[in-house]
Amino acid sequence: MPKVGITETVLRDAHQSLIATRMKIDDMLPILEKLDSVGYHSLEAWGGATFDACLRFLDEDPWERLRKIRSKTKTKLQMLLRGQNILAYKNFADDVVEYFVQKSIANGIDILRIFDALNDARNIETAIKACKKEGGHAQGTVCYTISPVHNLQHFVNDAKQLVEMGSDSICIKDMAGLLTPYAAFELVKAIKENVKVPVQLHTHYTSGVGSMTYLKAIEAGVDVVDCAISPMALGTSQPATEPLVATLKNTPFDTGLDLGLLSEIAEYFRPIKDKYLESGLLDVKVMGVDVNALIYQVPGGMLSNLVSQLKQSNAVDKYEEVLKEVPRVREDFGYPPLVTPTSQIVGTQAVLNVLMGERYKMVPKESKALVKGEYGKTPAPIPAEITNKILGDEEPITCRPADLLSPELDGIRDQMKEYLEQEEDVLSYALFPQVAENFFKLRQAGKYGIDSNMVDYKDKVHPV
Amino acid sequence: MPKVGITETVLRDAHQSLIATRMKIDDMLPILEKLDSVGYHSLEAWGGATFDACLRFLDEDPWERLRKIRSKTKTKLQMLLRGQNILAYKNFADDVVEYFVQKSIANGIDILRIFDALNDARNIETAIKACKKEGGHAQGTVCYTISPVHNLQHFVNDAKQLVEMGSDSICIKDMAGLLTPYAAFELVKAIKENVKVPVQLHTHYTSGVGSMTYLKAIEAGVDVVDCAISPMALGTSQPATEPLVATLKNTPFDTGLDLGLLSEIAEYFRPIKDKYLESGLLDVKVMGVDVNALIYQVPGGMLSNLVSQLKQSNAVDKYEEVLKEVPRVREDFGYPPLVTPTSQIVGTQAVLNVLMGERYKMVPKESKALVKGEYGKTPAPIPAEITNKILGDEEPITCRPADLLSPELDGIRDQMKEYLEQEEDVLSYALFPQVAENFFKLRQAGKYGIDSNMVDYKDKVHPV
Repeated sequence: MPKVGITETVLRDAHQSLIATRMKIDDMLPILEKLDSVGYHSLEAWGGATFDACLRFLDEDPWERLRKIRSKTKTKLQMLLRGQNILAYKNFADDVVEYFVQKSIANGIDILRIFDALNDARNIETAIKACKKEGGHAQGTVCYTISPVHNLQHFVNDAKQLVEMGSDSICIKDMAGLLTPYAAFELVKAIKENVKVPVQLHTHYTSGVGSMTYLKAIEAGVDVVDCAISPMALGTSQPATEPLVATLKNTPFDTGLDLGLLSEIAEYFRPIKDKYLESGLLDVKVMGVDVNALIYQVPGGMLSNLVSQLKQSNAVDKYEEVLKEVPRVREDFGYPPLVTPTSQIVGTQAVLNVLMGERYKMVPKESKALVKGEYGKTPAPIPAEITNKILGDEEPITCRPADLLSPELDGIRDQMKEYLEQEEDVLSYALFPQVAENFFKLRQAGKYGIDSNMVDYKDKVHPV
Repeated sequence: MPKVGITETVLRDAHQSLIATRMKIDDMLPILEKLDSVGYHSLEAWGGATFDACLRFLDEDPWERLRKIRSKTKTKLQMLLRGQNILAYKNFADDVVEYFVQKSIANGIDILRIFDALNDARNIETAIKACKKEGGHAQGTVCYTISPVHNLQHFVNDAKQLVEMGSDSICIKDMAGLLTPYAAFELVKAIKENVKVPVQLHTHYTSGVGSMTYLKAIEAGVDVVDCAISPMALGTSQPATEPLVATLKNTPFDTGLDLGLLSEIAEYFRPIKDKYLESGLLDVKVMGVDVNALIYQVPGGMLSNLVSQLKQSNAVDKYEEVLKEVPRVREDFGYPPLVTPTSQIVGTQAVLNVLMGERYKMVPKESKALVKGEYGKTPAPIPAEITNKILGDEEPITCRPADLLSPELDGIRDQMKEYLEQEEDVLSYALFPQVAENFFKLRQAGKYGIDSNMVDYKDKVHPV
């Protein structure tokens, strides 16, 4: 029995992070059986941005992709779900969330990793319950960040709350690569001491500490870590699989995975990586190490966004000033973890505060929504002074945001019924109406069809 | 007082490993003062292949390069010396070794890292003694390798012998990236327990375990590690400097280095790296992770050499057979560490043994020289059966190979006197007669001159 499990991310986060989620199913199919034979804890293969990218850029039906992957694998398949946002960027009513979870599991998903940008567990609860109801493994997620309120006890409380809601395991999601090795040791140890379920760690290699962070997390007792096969690892992607497997071999943490087999899988992906490099889809810049994330404690992508916003305003000389304003805005906004959409909201507000010469003179609607509570509860309360300044007379929301939404599914089905070829189409349309409609139209025009064998297939492989 | 020291390799091993030693002094000069202000334990800036590359490819006098670097830095400057081979590929008489060491220190070197491919301390001793005599810091080196005879006690004995010879510190040199994290912990612990001098660790990121290896070595008490600033790190180069500094910050191992300053240095090297990428000098392939070195316990470069040798003979189908023959030849040859030149000798012999259909039917002169003892004493005795088969009636050498060499310096000076413009020219000619002569001729033709201020300069900055 292996002591440490590996989730392989090459089918989802690795290519989402390195090549803007553009890996096609044709690059996956030839290697699925070999991936399946490795004995990974799971294959992260769906969710995140893959759903949108399939419909928008790859002319693929995301549901059919899932069924194809499922048809060639027995290893547990894992997906990433943004809580009440599902795989999009707004809150959906519970009936949509529940139906999406049901169909994800029916089409082949075993493990749902469910997170919320603010770590507001209320935004995760519906998905957890739906997942449990359908017999799936619900992994509640704690987004890692650094702030005066995010001490060990804060994260432990978040994790305990997710377990009380029914999480079968906990993921610590370090989306910005901020978690340094010794901090990881303390965090994993604290969470392991306080929850009874397995703990999984997810990081990105962006700042170059990722593999060391995994090593110390493993020594602290983490059960599973997310890695990518080496040609699709490092940089903005995950730490590489093979070096960690080699490191743990013949130790009490042995993964039990066969390096020879992993080497064959790496051989398969090397020419694919070369192809992405040649096409320009993969920029060598994202393969490097950028320690600025650790210096400023914000995601690397957020820093480059700030620079490009300042360039557009011919104000690059204000960069240092904006860098100092970012933590102040973050404090004003209740110390949200910096991840989509909060990283953009905080960054844009910091730029405006500096360029306007007066703080909160200009407040975009996203800032207002965050302060109002429309994204959920922030980690720390927002100071009354900020609430008053930004909301004026408007009352903040204190309930779960989705409590304000009526059931949506019937209305959505009605809007898109002319395109319906499989039940799952309703959900594609719910999440990305315009993009899905374009896809459906091309499908109707015969540009690509759904393989009806695949639609039937799901009922055979994954009865719920 | 920092607990862990960092040697920055960007001026030597990083570019030797990534871009075939082609970094010019012009790419170094603008950043030297900033590098100097960081507070590194040392800057590795000279020796290895840089000497040859300066003369052969870069139209630079290597001595002048050293003086230029010295003139802008107070940080200790470090070089790599191949023991009795100095910086070339054959044994030199002691008078040449002694004079080279004297001039290296006179021109600005503080720390000499001295190694021998077979870990035969007799090949290191003359350089250590010369270094001590000139007031330099002599770092005796143990090349790391994996074999049935290379257990902890073996390496400890090597290290103790080097300290007895006068080494001021010990380097564990993992040139092939074979040292995994937990093995590093045990090795460093064993050596630290048995020698009183500081221990430094050198590895390459080739197999992807390097930063984890440093972390465990540091926990075991290693004093200094070799890193490269991030744009010139990873792949076949060293682990990156910044992530390790960030990892150790506010721990008992804190390096005391300023991440902001390191970030500025990284900014400087990023466009330089881009330039090398664009020119094709830097191939993105060498930036990746290749775990095959760990699987076969031989350097990555040796594996690709085997493939290309087999291709030349239209025998790629014999690759698996050759891979099995390599450890057998290595055993027959007394388990040498696999590094230039032993990696080539063992690899070529393995290929010949397979292609000929009979072992040792064909024996190149380098194999014969190794078996005869001309490179020094192998880690394990060579079996009599092999010695008889390969040497026939010839007697093996058991003395230190350089004991068979008469003083060479006067003869060399005589051969090249028409070119002499500075004393150091004698040594350039001694090491690389043909290459140096070409360089001298171009210099005489006025293509480039020696800055006489720089020649004088050495006496001011580094009196010995």
